[in-house]
Amino acid sequence: MELSEKAIIERIRSSSGSAGGELLVAIGDDCAVLKRTGNMLELLTIDTLVEEIHFNSVWHAPLLLGRKAAAVNISDIAAMGGMPRYALLSLALPGDFKKEWLDDFMKGFLACLADYDTELIGGDTVGSSGGITISVTLLGEVSETELLRRSTARAGDLVVVSDFLGEAAAGLELCRNGYHDKGDGGGGWQRLLAAHLDPEPEVALGRLLAASGRVTAMMDLSDGLATDLAHLCMESGVGAEVEASSLPITDKLQIAAELLDGDPFEWALRGGEDYRLLFTVAEGHFEELNDQVRSEIGRTLHVVGKVVDGSGVTLLEGAKRRDISYTGYDHFK
Amino acid sequence: MELSEKAIIERIRSSSGSAGGELLVAIGDDCAVLKRTGNMLELLTIDTLVEEIHFNSVWHAPLLLGRKAAAVNISDIAAMGGMPRYALLSLALPGDFKKEWLDDFMKGFLACLADYDTELIGGDTVGSSGGITISVTLLGEVSETELLRRSTARAGDLVVVSDFLGEAAAGLELCRNGYHDKGDGGGGWQRLLAAHLDPEPEVALGRLLAASGRVTAMMDLSDGLATDLAHLCMESGVGAEVEASSLPITDKLQIAAELLDGDPFEWALRGGEDYRLLFTVAEGHFEELNDQVRSEIGRTLHVVGKVVDGSGVTLLEGAKRRDISYTGYDHFK
Repeated sequence: MELSEKAIIERIRSSSGSAGGELLVAIGDDCAVLKRTGNMLELLTIDTLVEEIHFNSVWHAPLLLGRKAAAVNISDIAAMGGMPRYALLSLALPGDFKKEWLDDFMKGFLACLADYDTELIGGDTVGSSGGITISVTLLGEVSETELLRRSTARAGDLVVVSDFLGEAAAGLELCRNGYHDKGDGGGGWQRLLAAHLDPEPEVALGRLLAASGRVTAMMDLSDGLATDLAHLCMESGVGAEVEASSLPITDKLQIAAELLDGDPFEWALRGGEDYRLLFTVAEGHFEELNDQVRSEIGRTLHVVGKVVDGSGVTLLEGAKRRDISYTGYDHFK
Repeated sequence: MELSEKAIIERIRSSSGSAGGELLVAIGDDCAVLKRTGNMLELLTIDTLVEEIHFNSVWHAPLLLGRKAAAVNISDIAAMGGMPRYALLSLALPGDFKKEWLDDFMKGFLACLADYDTELIGGDTVGSSGGITISVTLLGEVSETELLRRSTARAGDLVVVSDFLGEAAAGLELCRNGYHDKGDGGGGWQRLLAAHLDPEPEVALGRLLAASGRVTAMMDLSDGLATDLAHLCMESGVGAEVEASSLPITDKLQIAAELLDGDPFEWALRGGEDYRLLFTVAEGHFEELNDQVRSEIGRTLHVVGKVVDGSGVTLLEGAKRRDISYTGYDHFK
């Protein structure tokens, strides 16, 4: 392989259309954005899950895989402050697929859509010469005044994440080591396993943050903080500093890391698929916003660093400074 | 494999949402249809092309494959009388893909979009554990009064196709036999090869037919007349009779069939991917419509049969009658 995912996307982006007219945002954010009726905007995103790359059928039951295929796309809508509305599904299935698999997958997919008031409105099914490939397109909406983008962070803002990090990476490692099969009795790994197998998109929190008027830029965490924050910085024309000691890591994650010989900081920085929200907010607005989040949806925000002039993402560990830009999950590395 | 493609789609359809509110058409037509500003409707379709199932990289140059990935989706918009507007692209690429391949693919994809005034507005790129998988979502629009659906054919209508049939199937056979490599000098197979390698969606014709107010139902031909007409009949609650002697087949197709030991009638009835329009029109309106098509875009329509009461597609060959419903291309047979 000769190109990183970032290079591929830049390649495609440079040759595609730029925003203008009713197209407010083209390639480069979580969703494309079209101006529609009144001041409502339409959000559009497409994502593909490939067997053996994004999921392993040994531990990913079709019901949960169906949920996840919906969730990861809904997360892109949440990332811009939007409400998901409609979904299109394209499934490529090998010749020997089982109808029970399809029924369970669809049950999970539709249940997750229903959880977020989203309807399946179209799709197609084709044969696959390899494994299962799942492509989902999600349509959402948001009012023009509440749209949150990646490209509007300002030097001085705090960098905030909406929950603990690295849990999906830990969950994946637990699955690889067979813990998905050990039932409840064992280590109590349900939360970490669910982070990988059945992630929850942050729609309610995304809406709250968008409506608050306090957030300056936002995206979701799909490729790990090091990579996703680097994207946000590049789009905003700023840099960021992340405090290693501020990374929100649970005790349970530490225990899992010891058990599995993993590194919780690596999981938090470079593990993908947490599907939490990453956003920036002026320092003076943070406490008020955190109080609102705590009281309205019972969650606590975590400040992990600061937006600075310059470019790239720098990790601060005591006196040490390290550039960690784009060192997270890359589909082509 | 246990299910036909039709059974899979019925399975998904039965568990998904039905039309209502701003959702005018859900699963079961070429596109989903949403009511938007004023009397404009938004058309949405998703399609996936899988290496070794839908294309073979040995004879499908990336430039033409890129064009085709756009064209087959644009065809779904044309099938409802619409204008394509925006595209989303999701590419799953194996680790050893070449950047020249990607550049050529994108060049072709964007050139075809540009031919139809359509912009690429989003997408993603992921790794693939198998071959290349290409998913495209297309957004189009059409006014509410001009939308053409599959479900509105009436007994007594003529069944019409917009061009000769079986050419894509013949083109595929020519490729399988190495004729894509023999240059112009040989048999003069360019038209048949192009039907498979570089099909042209019928956007201008679809718009003309929609604006004419004469067409009662329409769809595009992607899985072959026998299967596609059976879908149209089922959605409309009618049957159809097709005259074998009316199938529009060129002399060149006959010659290709002799050369390749193929059957031109099989190609015309069951070969997929012609991407021509299939529609129904009251007998009394046909001549006027055909004259308009001929004078405005220089094409000739072909009547292949008639809509009748009942169900299914019957092929008439002299005194013989045969049910040929759903005997065309099936991704799972």
